Amino acid sequence: MNIINFDHLSANPILPEVQEAMIDVIRNNYGNPSSQHSLGDAAATALEAARDSVSALINCPVSKEIVFTSGGTESVNHAIKGVAFAKADKGKHIITSNIEHNAVIRSLKRLKLFDYNVTSVSVDKYGMVDPAEIEAAIKDDTILISIMHSNNEIGTIQPIKEIGEIAKARKVLFHSDAVDSVGVVPVDVQELGVDLLSFASNPFYGPAGVGGLYIKRGTAIWPMFDGGVQENNKRAGTENMIGIVGMGKAAEFAKRDMEKRIAHSKMLKEKFLRELPDYLDEYIINGHPEKSLPNHISISLKYIEGESVVLMLDEEGIAVSTRSACAAGALRASHVLLSIGHEFADAQGTMVITFGMENTEEDVERFLAVLKETVVSLREISPLYKK
Amino acid sequence: MNIINFDHLSANPILPEVQEAMIDVIRNNYGNPSSQHSLGDAAATALEAARDSVSALINCPVSKEIVFTSGGTESVNHAIKGVAFAKADKGKHIITSNIEHNAVIRSLKRLKLFDYNVTSVSVDKYGMVDPAEIEAAIKDDTILISIMHSNNEIGTIQPIKEIGEIAKARKVLFHSDAVDSVGVVPVDVQELGVDLLSFASNPFYGPAGVGGLYIKRGTAIWPMFDGGVQENNKRAGTENMIGIVGMGKAAEFAKRDMEKRIAHSKMLKEKFLRELPDYLDEYIINGHPEKSLPNHISISLKYIEGESVVLMLDEEGIAVSTRSACAAGALRASHVLLSIGHEFADAQGTMVITFGMENTEEDVERFLAVLKETVVSLREISPLYKK
Repeated sequence: MNIINFDHLSANPILPEVQEAMIDVIRNNYGNPSSQHSLGDAAATALEAARDSVSALINCPVSKEIVFTSGGTESVNHAIKGVAFAKADKGKHIITSNIEHNAVIRSLKRLKLFDYNVTSVSVDKYGMVDPAEIEAAIKDDTILISIMHSNNEIGTIQPIKEIGEIAKARKVLFHSDAVDSVGVVPVDVQELGVDLLSFASNPFYGPAGVGGLYIKRGTAIWPMFDGGVQENNKRAGTENMIGIVGMGKAAEFAKRDMEKRIAHSKMLKEKFLRELPDYLDEYIINGHPEKSLPNHISISLKYIEGESVVLMLDEEGIAVSTRSACAAGALRASHVLLSIGHEFADAQGTMVITFGMENTEEDVERFLAVLKETVVSLREISPLYKK
Repeated sequence: MNIINFDHLSANPILPEVQEAMIDVIRNNYGNPSSQHSLGDAAATALEAARDSVSALINCPVSKEIVFTSGGTESVNHAIKGVAFAKADKGKHIITSNIEHNAVIRSLKRLKLFDYNVTSVSVDKYGMVDPAEIEAAIKDDTILISIMHSNNEIGTIQPIKEIGEIAKARKVLFHSDAVDSVGVVPVDVQELGVDLLSFASNPFYGPAGVGGLYIKRGTAIWPMFDGGVQENNKRAGTENMIGIVGMGKAAEFAKRDMEKRIAHSKMLKEKFLRELPDYLDEYIINGHPEKSLPNHISISLKYIEGESVVLMLDEEGIAVSTRSACAAGALRASHVLLSIGHEFADAQGTMVITFGMENTEEDVERFLAVLKETVVSLREISPLYKK
């Protein structure tokens, strides 16, 4: 069965042009960029070309500020732990929000074992952080603020620029986990005023398992991996050239086609939201109504379980998610949905839809029809539902 | 110009069958193994199949003991720092040797900033560690021994099994950095008695930027990356499926063809060493004469600099290395060569040759002839050389 993918958050297809670039690296033995002889020349050139493309995507002034990583999780761990350890003599207080991705939450939890303390600011019903709350939380020993650019579960885009101004004025380093934003919506590290920004290749149709960390010049940070002198001494280890070249190529297309992609996603999102009341009742659309990822919808369907919806839709050839794939193995109610004020039961009934370039209006129509059947049949057997 | 690769340590070609397996993942959108829907099924199946192949290569009893990483450097950092932090309440003393790879040395140096202390045992003139010295170094607060399986610069293979027995008897965890051994020579984690073993895919004709860490069941270790629940909760982050599938396929071939590959390398190595005196004088062959990697030769050429040899050979279409590519950017005399008793000048004149499956006897003959010319012309201009 041909599956319609409405779960681009967990798995994007790789662009055909990106595929070809990666296959070229595989077939033509690019070598090791650190080699002393000319067998490594092609790799060294390709590595820096990829760094330039990625750099351009986020308007990084100097491409050496980009460190290639094995993905968003490594980038986030590197940013948070790397700064925390490097700045320990200045203080051990870190500010974050209570709707961050587990990579942030658990990195901070890990740091608590080293006597760091964390202030986690709350969010409003749209999942929005209030910059004033961040500012109020800053103490003399605050060394880092980490706030995500967009939320992977509800799509809300945070006021990063405002927080960046506060961080700069108060001389606190500022990291943003922008894994679900970079390559999807415009992200400009200079405009945002971030010192560190984490991102990954797969959200913009590059390969999974490769990502980047923007580290502004002069930022005090330790490497995650000690060893060789790769990545300007910021990340030891032989490079994943296949993935890096793919990410570079994907970044080129993301920059070139961003407006077109946003328009397409927005059109599908608006169609879905506009027509949904014709199919279903008793649901909540999560996240901010405007300041939100254009390709993202989170819906809490009352009286039923998101997991069951996902499984039944899968049988009908439609892929959606309850929330991020990273948390799929963890059977707990979403901390994000509870943070925006949902009851446990509503949080459990949540489905995340993420659109991609290959989705069509017909896909959305089929989706709505199948979703209606699914929800009706699940509600019929739900003890919570009374007609 | 077609370059003859005698630097397989820094860059192996990827086996054609491995290339095809990776291209299949790229073209057929395997998805995300953590997805809740069937789009991720192919990835989940491929991930576990790769884990089984890699597991079989090192005779790991349970495939879940394998954690996929972004390469040898991550594996080593994970093993050393992960155990050190997890066992901090038991003690902060770690034993290693003074010829380890920089990933080990610098991870341990990093730990010193957290008040860990390190005993670094010396080696003999062949670069061999004496297990009795390891045993003598064990203290009440020793939590970890980390000794490489084979040395990347001089090829010497350490008495890992003997050290494993000591570690077990003294109840100290034992890690071996086997990056240059796994897939090249037989490595059996059960026979060696290691608790942790680091390895990478590229030494056995898989892709670079992907590796593994064997973690024996029940070993106390922290993850490097906090976040999602991937890799049995031992390594968060969306998987590099393309690399992992490549590594799995390469592991299959490494296991199947190991004897044949060893015989081929050994034949070339022996031919080179046998014929070398007909071409050159005043050189030292480094490393143990028998207990050594079959594909590895390290030669210190008196009166000249290894860097110059590498550059001149490169112009003649022959790729060799002065030492590991990871250290190529670092202009210092090799700590390994100084540790086995070389003078600074001899250490500087060292060249590392690593053979591969595609090298032929004719390649070796051409190499010897070109090497002679190179060395003669470099010695002619050397102020150290007196005819």
